[in-house]
Amino acid sequence: MVNIKKKLRGINGGSMFSQKLRNLDWKKFQALPTHKRKEYFAKDGRIFDVLFSQQFSRATLDLLYRIINKVRHIHKTKDGAKWLSSLLSTKKAMLYFTQPSTRTYLSFVTACQTLGIQTADVRSSQTSSEMKGETFEDTIQTFSSYFDVIIMRNPHEGHAEKASFVLNNTLRPIPIINAGSGKDQHPTQALLDIYTLQKSFSDVGGLDNKTIMMVGDLKRGRTVHSLSYLLTNYNKMKIILSSPEQFRMGTEITEFLKINNIELLETTEFKKFLPDADAVYMTRIQDEHDTNNESSSYDKKKYTIDQEALKDIKPTSFILHPLPRIFEIKREVDKDPRAIYWRQVRNGMWARVALLIYLFRLEEKIFDR
Amino acid sequence: MVNIKKKLRGINGGSMFSQKLRNLDWKKFQALPTHKRKEYFAKDGRIFDVLFSQQFSRATLDLLYRIINKVRHIHKTKDGAKWLSSLLSTKKAMLYFTQPSTRTYLSFVTACQTLGIQTADVRSSQTSSEMKGETFEDTIQTFSSYFDVIIMRNPHEGHAEKASFVLNNTLRPIPIINAGSGKDQHPTQALLDIYTLQKSFSDVGGLDNKTIMMVGDLKRGRTVHSLSYLLTNYNKMKIILSSPEQFRMGTEITEFLKINNIELLETTEFKKFLPDADAVYMTRIQDEHDTNNESSSYDKKKYTIDQEALKDIKPTSFILHPLPRIFEIKREVDKDPRAIYWRQVRNGMWARVALLIYLFRLEEKIFDR
Amino acid sequence: MVNIKKKLRGINGGSMFSQKLRNLDWKKFQALPTHKRKEYFAKDGRIFDVLFSQQFSRATLDLLYRIINKVRHIHKTKDGAKWLSSLLSTKKAMLYFTQPSTRTYLSFVTACQTLGIQTADVRSSQTSSEMKGETFEDTIQTFSSYFDVIIMRNPHEGHAEKASFVLNNTLRPIPIINAGSGKDQHPTQALLDIYTLQKSFSDVGGLDNKTIMMVGDLKRGRTVHSLSYLLTNYNKMKIILSSPEQFRMGTEITEFLKINNIELLETTEFKKFLPDADAVYMTRIQDEHDTNNESSSYDKKKYTIDQEALKDIKPTSFILHPLPRIFEIKREVDKDPRAIYWRQVRNGMWARVALLIYLFRLEEKIFDR
Repeated sequence: MVNIKKKLRGINGGSMFSQKLRNLDWKKFQALPTHKRKEYFAKDGRIFDVLFSQQFSRATLDLLYRIINKVRHIHKTKDGAKWLSSLLSTKKAMLYFTQPSTRTYLSFVTACQTLGIQTADVRSSQTSSEMKGETFEDTIQTFSSYFDVIIMRNPHEGHAEKASFVLNNTLRPIPIINAGSGKDQHPTQALLDIYTLQKSFSDVGGLDNKTIMMVGDLKRGRTVHSLSYLLTNYNKMKIILSSPEQFRMGTEITEFLKINNIELLETTEFKKFLPDADAVYMTRIQDEHDTNNESSSYDKKKYTIDQEALKDIKPTSFILHPLPRIFEIKREVDKDPRAIYWRQVRNGMWARVALLIYLFRLEEKIFDR
Repeated sequence: MVNIKKKLRGINGGSMFSQKLRNLDWKKFQALPTHKRKEYFAKDGRIFDVLFSQQFSRATLDLLYRIINKVRHIHKTKDGAKWLSSLLSTKKAMLYFTQPSTRTYLSFVTACQTLGIQTADVRSSQTSSEMKGETFEDTIQTFSSYFDVIIMRNPHEGHAEKASFVLNNTLRPIPIINAGSGKDQHPTQALLDIYTLQKSFSDVGGLDNKTIMMVGDLKRGRTVHSLSYLLTNYNKMKIILSSPEQFRMGTEITEFLKINNIELLETTEFKKFLPDADAVYMTRIQDEHDTNNESSSYDKKKYTIDQEALKDIKPTSFILHPLPRIFEIKREVDKDPRAIYWRQVRNGMWARVALLIYLFRLEEKIFDR
Repeated sequence: MVNIKKKLRGINGGSMFSQKLRNLDWKKFQALPTHKRKEYFAKDGRIFDVLFSQQFSRATLDLLYRIINKVRHIHKTKDGAKWLSSLLSTKKAMLYFTQPSTRTYLSFVTACQTLGIQTADVRSSQTSSEMKGETFEDTIQTFSSYFDVIIMRNPHEGHAEKASFVLNNTLRPIPIINAGSGKDQHPTQALLDIYTLQKSFSDVGGLDNKTIMMVGDLKRGRTVHSLSYLLTNYNKMKIILSSPEQFRMGTEITEFLKINNIELLETTEFKKFLPDADAVYMTRIQDEHDTNNESSSYDKKKYTIDQEALKDIKPTSFILHPLPRIFEIKREVDKDPRAIYWRQVRNGMWARVALLIYLFRLEEKIFDR
């Protein structure tokens, strides 16, 4: 654990962050524009804390893509798998998951295990010292005393970023990975989505020049938010946003897409635009965020892929879903070769393996093997 | 993780299960006779999913017996223990325990650790995606994306079997071990019981030709159900079933025992038959399954082993209990050399170690050492 | 697991404990004086179960101090860290934490990981067999069947000691570490406190001859209880106890301090005595133990270190806190070089690493490297 600190300091020749930002308080920091905050969470031109999708450049996405492919290849042999599991065996990861999760939690745990990283978790704020009245700041700083990376999921917006902000103001900053905080972003889900799309389109020139249709609760679904930001890294993209009026994507994101030259279509139609999509990204209604039973008026039949809807989707197209699904895709669709959401699940683990390799700066070791 | 799939397919030359069964739905499958369902959960003449005791033949029980003895021997030296812990170090096990458990949970965790298998767990359905409305099928398929084996305990009958059924209909089936589901069966408990009995009787010809007395809540105690099925693999067995009238063993089991040539005696007496038993298997009242306070009429004094009752038990006999015990065996009995329930606890871990070795087909490697 | 038992028996030439103590029951045992109970939890002149601070002699404290320093040194290189993580890789630790905890739990988990010890945990009595009516004795004995050491935190006084008492009366005793039980003691916290003090005073002759001021809820704070006992191992110590009248340190401890030649001052003053202290040990109000809202009358402003109070503390002095803190030390104080409570947190892991090395008798191996 000592090593990381030393390394960071060594690279930096002193304190990690500019003195100017160090003296900001959290409220003022939050008000900074994204590109300023991005800098604060970077180091040596690399992402240090993984918090929001806007941190990822095309170069980083392409690097992660290469790492995933290489790691999957290495893992295929028993010797390769053993070698991977010794790579980070003296490192420790904290899984701080105070919001229910299975998929993300398990994919991070197994990603760590694949690399030999030891894990511990706090999955309920009821078993932690926060119950005794400890501040969030002290809790996070405590974790940083024992671990080399913190992976956190939290019901509150911005809490992962706040945790990073707190640690970057201590003598012992360690990377934080946002595994979903509130309804704002879920960057590692977007990474696996991008990988799955790139891989699926690998015979037809990759993601560039494609039409991606996103469907469902676009307002509160954090996976589509994070994915939208990432898609701006690709060329000549079209995005179709299909949702009921009250669940439209927020304007801060649609504006961002337009500024970044994405061709954008917003519609309440669903079936009508299916034939145009190279990929259909379905999402569930986030009714846990309802404040006034908004979801009850949602027309479930309309925004659903069943055998009938399959006919409108191109044979070369793909169907994705971050899961869990409720009604949006019928189970009968699973056997259709265009359905790749179960592949997404498995890619989720590999994307997180690659991200950890990147954060611990081991990609050269991977490529050299 | 990729390897298992490949291996299974390789062995199979294609899909794992016959197309005929693939097209059955779960309800129809459930109605099939046991020997048909047994086939479905087998592969290459071996058990693939461990769901109910009827899957175990005498040959498999004898093989597991030999594996346990060998593993215990290997583990005695530090080198041996290290070797064992590297055997399956690239494998991952999911512990999906949504019913309270200590003993079974911990014995599986430590069994995995003994073999180097990495584990993760979901121990409350409240921290999982089922809360968000995901189906059981999708949850199980998600687990299968990250792990190489799923060990599950569930409050509902047949859920482990349903999970296996679901996965065997996907492209990536992995073994499922039933660690207790509802009040029907608990096959790995029965395996450790059989091992403990065989080992204890090793100087007197093993289990064949013995009289086993089972006592307590035979109606709802899943350990005695699973054990009863296993005992039909041995020759010239007598079974005495001692319980209050309302807690008699179900007829589907007593019929099975009779068909399989077990000499059977059902009685509400307890002390009267103690002298006949070569082993007395005590169980607790499963009052968590009460629907109408049935357990309140249970005569606790009658079905209890204390110093007094010890006098009626043969000096060469053994006393077993799956634990936890409530009142059925007084703690003063623990020091009696015939009391072997604490040995059962330790054997529980070894039996699970052996089962995992068997499922990953490593027994030859064990015997070769 | 078998090995430990054998080793213990081998060393002992038979049963571990004298027959005389074996026949005592728990109630009678509890009434024995501390030095008698100490003997019962020792073996071969070494501590076997870590239960209360009075078990630690100056020699043992000095040995642990040396182990910590050496381990931290070894861990600095990647090779050293790898070597440490293989030291106890065939051992298993049970974390039985039925009282909320973050810091202690995580520091033990990461301490185990640092040495390669595999862990499993039960963190809620609701997921365990105690729910089904099993006795505490049976639960503990079950754990001892699977693990090589039990680390336990419990809301009830004396429960860790009772667990040790139970196991020492079985054929398979394993060490128990008290990670906090009720409001009585928290010996491993005291060990890290002592280490931190010794280390901080290393340029000025160590802990001997120093004045330690303890502040806050001295009545119910188990860390100050355990620390007080340990401080009697050092020469010419002065202790200042600063607390509101109703939260004074219990007389069983103050009497013990006096008998052991500690110069003692009890006061309700705070700021007045700050200039006398070589170390100020702050603690929080343990209001979870309130029976009659006692804490509401606590004068929070008075017993707090802020910028103002810092001026009264000597430049060579140190500020400690076991954490979590609520209001007792303002966050602005963290940047003061005399504030060493975050160092305490990190030392907590190292102290537990050292303790585990000691319990498994590996210190010579550490010093030889």
